[in-house]
Amino acid sequence: MTALARAARRYLLPLFLLMAIAPSAQGTEVLASWDEGEAKQSIVRFVESVVAEGSADFVPVPERIAVFDNDGTLWGEQPLYFQLLFALDRIKALAPQHPEWKDKEPFASLLKGNVKAALAGGEPAIMQIVMATHSGMTTDEFDQIVSDWIASAKHPKTGRLYTEMAYQPMLEVLSYLRANGFKTFIVSGGGIDFMRVFSEDVYGIPPEQIVGSSGKTSFEIRDGAPLLMKLPEINFIDDKAGKPVGIHQHIGRRPIAAFGNSDGDLQMLQWTCSGPGPHFCLYVHHTDADREWAYDRQSSIGHLDKGLDAAADSGWTVVDMKKDWNRVFAFEK
Amino acid sequence: MTALARAARRYLLPLFLLMAIAPSAQGTEVLASWDEGEAKQSIVRFVESVVAEGSADFVPVPERIAVFDNDGTLWGEQPLYFQLLFALDRIKALAPQHPEWKDKEPFASLLKGNVKAALAGGEPAIMQIVMATHSGMTTDEFDQIVSDWIASAKHPKTGRLYTEMAYQPMLEVLSYLRANGFKTFIVSGGGIDFMRVFSEDVYGIPPEQIVGSSGKTSFEIRDGAPLLMKLPEINFIDDKAGKPVGIHQHIGRRPIAAFGNSDGDLQMLQWTCSGPGPHFCLYVHHTDADREWAYDRQSSIGHLDKGLDAAADSGWTVVDMKKDWNRVFAFEK
Repeated sequence: MTALARAARRYLLPLFLLMAIAPSAQGTEVLASWDEGEAKQSIVRFVESVVAEGSADFVPVPERIAVFDNDGTLWGEQPLYFQLLFALDRIKALAPQHPEWKDKEPFASLLKGNVKAALAGGEPAIMQIVMATHSGMTTDEFDQIVSDWIASAKHPKTGRLYTEMAYQPMLEVLSYLRANGFKTFIVSGGGIDFMRVFSEDVYGIPPEQIVGSSGKTSFEIRDGAPLLMKLPEINFIDDKAGKPVGIHQHIGRRPIAAFGNSDGDLQMLQWTCSGPGPHFCLYVHHTDADREWAYDRQSSIGHLDKGLDAAADSGWTVVDMKKDWNRVFAFEK
Repeated sequence: MTALARAARRYLLPLFLLMAIAPSAQGTEVLASWDEGEAKQSIVRFVESVVAEGSADFVPVPERIAVFDNDGTLWGEQPLYFQLLFALDRIKALAPQHPEWKDKEPFASLLKGNVKAALAGGEPAIMQIVMATHSGMTTDEFDQIVSDWIASAKHPKTGRLYTEMAYQPMLEVLSYLRANGFKTFIVSGGGIDFMRVFSEDVYGIPPEQIVGSSGKTSFEIRDGAPLLMKLPEINFIDDKAGKPVGIHQHIGRRPIAAFGNSDGDLQMLQWTCSGPGPHFCLYVHHTDADREWAYDRQSSIGHLDKGLDAAADSGWTVVDMKKDWNRVFAFEK
């Protein structure tokens, strides 16, 4: 045995032991923006149980899949979904190239600043707005458009960048899960191409771990250069019963943890929490009208009604934002 | 500074230096089933250039995305795609429950053992066979069916399990890339649900890194239990121009390395090798009628015609299986 090997044996072993102990020693620091209470404890209890080797609830690393809704779960969604606010900004930016919009709804109302009248057309009106702003360009061009917008547009209430409106306690949950061997995915009704632009920077979630709604794309070669065109045609709606379908399509195995905030997440939570092994489901309940917004059963955005009942019936964790989070946004101080 | 910290600084630094040197020291052992030659050297040259920090070709780890076709690239595809052989076996297994198949093509011919007559119906006949065997059950049930088949069915020529017909040199490429920070994906015309059953065991590629053709699924709650039903309806065909579309849909960024063997992979290679940064494209050319099969421009399975020309025009690597691989299958000795 060389001197180096002897020294390694002598000093590395204590170091490795220290490293092995570290996760639980850090236990008191994780989830710092969460108040002590049942919500936080339920997360820690679940994570500690599935990582404990030899325990009945142990889950091997490759199966530690956690899925998160985005709007209302990882970042805000009021007064309108942020992606819809992006689309409205784009309509204004594109208006000079579309003189016909002055006399055509929903564009005419939008351009007069009357969002309510524009959206009164319901889903067909929203689809017209989405298609006009999310298709007709290459995927690279769309990336650049979103990238420019997300770096500069400000939220109408807080005056902050939209990316600053990620919930600090949820960012801590993402980090905590990843530190414990989980792979974290977004599974959102929002647009997959929209979220991928900022998900890695804001959430630490790479593009290949985003599941979302999408339009069709076509592969074309233009002037010798291959490109993907975004077409004005729906490919997949990743909402409600579409969420477990999207999870199966993209991930191919059942998650063991799911986080949502609305009835649109209910089927994702049902799918996750009916798996044969250990599982964890959590609803974020928006209860803080001062620091954020308060809404649930009556809201059109982030409608949470059946989900609240299902959570009570099934023993899922329900986060009371006002009570359980000592900080909502990182910018709060 | 404690004694432990002093010792760590003294002995860990040399250890880290040793570890940093290790990858190139191992360089001579990687790709052991590849003969020395331009094909092997082109792979090593590419990998060494993108991992060299500070070099102009350096690519950060998250962007090291490599995509592999499956049939004919990672495992065999003759005399028929293995998934089609699975479907034919299933037709026989299901025949007792379908007395009507005795008088209905393509089933009648199949059950008489006349595969050629059954497949004479072309794509519609194949679709009927695929739908009869890949839908009408839950995703969990389908997993189990494939799992049982892949563990026991034998290839008609080699008498080996199909999973033993993975190409040893390509398994080494997968490992070599992953050891250098690449994330490896399958992007195949084959069924996503079929490949996911064995991809982790055989290729070390987890289900969430498989892109493939798929049928639609529906989320249902039956007797209180959520499930996903496989429907007899095409969702996506991941072939030809569908491959870059599938890559965008599942991965969300352009790969920097792509491996294929047929014209069905051409658009995937074009998409990968027209990226702005460093990139690498490789075609496996089936040239070894003794150890495997020899086919290209005239073959209906693994048809490689335009791809060969594009490879020559673009300077892509073309592997001559007979010359470049000293071993095709691990079982060879």
